[in-house]
Amino acid sequence: MPLKLYIAGPEVFLANAREVMRAKTALCRKYGFEAICPGDLDIPPSDTRKGFGLAISRVDEEMMNSADGVIANLTPFRGIAADVGTCFELGYMCAQGKLVAAYTNVAAGHYERTLGYYNGQVTADADGHKRGPDGLSLEDFDMIDNLMMHGGVERRGGHIAVHAAAADALYTDLTAFEECLKALAEKRNSAHRDEGMRPEELDASNDD
Amino acid sequence: MPLKLYIAGPEVFLANAREVMRAKTALCRKYGFEAICPGDLDIPPSDTRKGFGLAISRVDEEMMNSADGVIANLTPFRGIAADVGTCFELGYMCAQGKLVAAYTNVAAGHYERTLGYYNGQVTADADGHKRGPDGLSLEDFDMIDNLMMHGGVERRGGHIAVHAAAADALYTDLTAFEECLKALAEKRNSAHRDEGMRPEELDASNDD
Repeated sequence: MPLKLYIAGPEVFLANAREVMRAKTALCRKYGFEAICPGDLDIPPSDTRKGFGLAISRVDEEMMNSADGVIANLTPFRGIAADVGTCFELGYMCAQGKLVAAYTNVAAGHYERTLGYYNGQVTADADGHKRGPDGLSLEDFDMIDNLMMHGGVERRGGHIAVHAAAADALYTDLTAFEECLKALAEKRNSAHRDEGMRPEELDASNDD
Repeated sequence: MPLKLYIAGPEVFLANAREVMRAKTALCRKYGFEAICPGDLDIPPSDTRKGFGLAISRVDEEMMNSADGVIANLTPFRGIAADVGTCFELGYMCAQGKLVAAYTNVAAGHYERTLGYYNGQVTADADGHKRGPDGLSLEDFDMIDNLMMHGGVERRGGHIAVHAAAADALYTDLTAFEECLKALAEKRNSAHRDEGMRPEELDASNDD
């Protein structure tokens, strides 16, 4: 049974979302994983707009519960930060102790992007905290986004991939996605190798 | 032992973060809860900026693991969406099956804010999906933010509070925060009442 990876990212909002999901699914297969994509299942109809949104929430959470890991696309979305739905999903999978990896198709890190948001108008306060004109402090931790996401992945030994995609391929370029798949496949294969070293084999190898 | 609530929100970035946290902690106590606030513990020093960010990530996750629930401040932050770190934390707590509640200090919903992001230039495609000039679809589900957050809370029976705060009190107005506390206290108290109805008591009440 191949390990199942939940595909989290704002590409679900693209007009060609299904096409991108098919490409991601094919890449997962190439590395021996099964992709679980939001949008794969039909959502039961609802009487209200909110009811429909709740139904999608339920289906997506069930998909995550059934998955062994996640690759989260943290490319900035409608602003300087990652898609909030993707961040929720990454937190959800981190809490479950699943395999995690994340990528961004924007080379500028979290601090640089926040600096850009303030047009560079950032000053240090008495405690050394960097703050914008609105008084809000900036995280300057050499990370791709807020420390909960980047830290949640890296502390679990998960891979973070950064690739500077072309502006017109921000949500479709799969270079960094594939880098995550390679890292997850290596991790899985080395785990298999460790599993292969059963106590009796270790004993046998000491027989000579 | 009072239930412990993790305090998630972008107010950690305020210059007076500690003051706001003290006010939230006092309100939690008023309703019989214990507040667990990011920033309460000293973070061990690190040789690198990233190392320090990773240390905060670890401490915050440990705080969440020790908490019984979360109140997430989903007020839009540096753009049209909630703070991404808060969204990660809400997903993390939803996955653990903890008590959840969320609020926003902006009355305009997710759809209205996204419409504003596109200056109203939104059209429906052949399938009826509303899309911005960049082709990205808009969620129109009568929710305060992306459906994973709003749905994750509401599907768990968690309270969503909306309050139109003054512009200069966007991250400090605690009206909606207190509404969440009231809802969580009611839920806790009704659970206690249910627990009080032990089988033997039910039998006794049927004796007459």
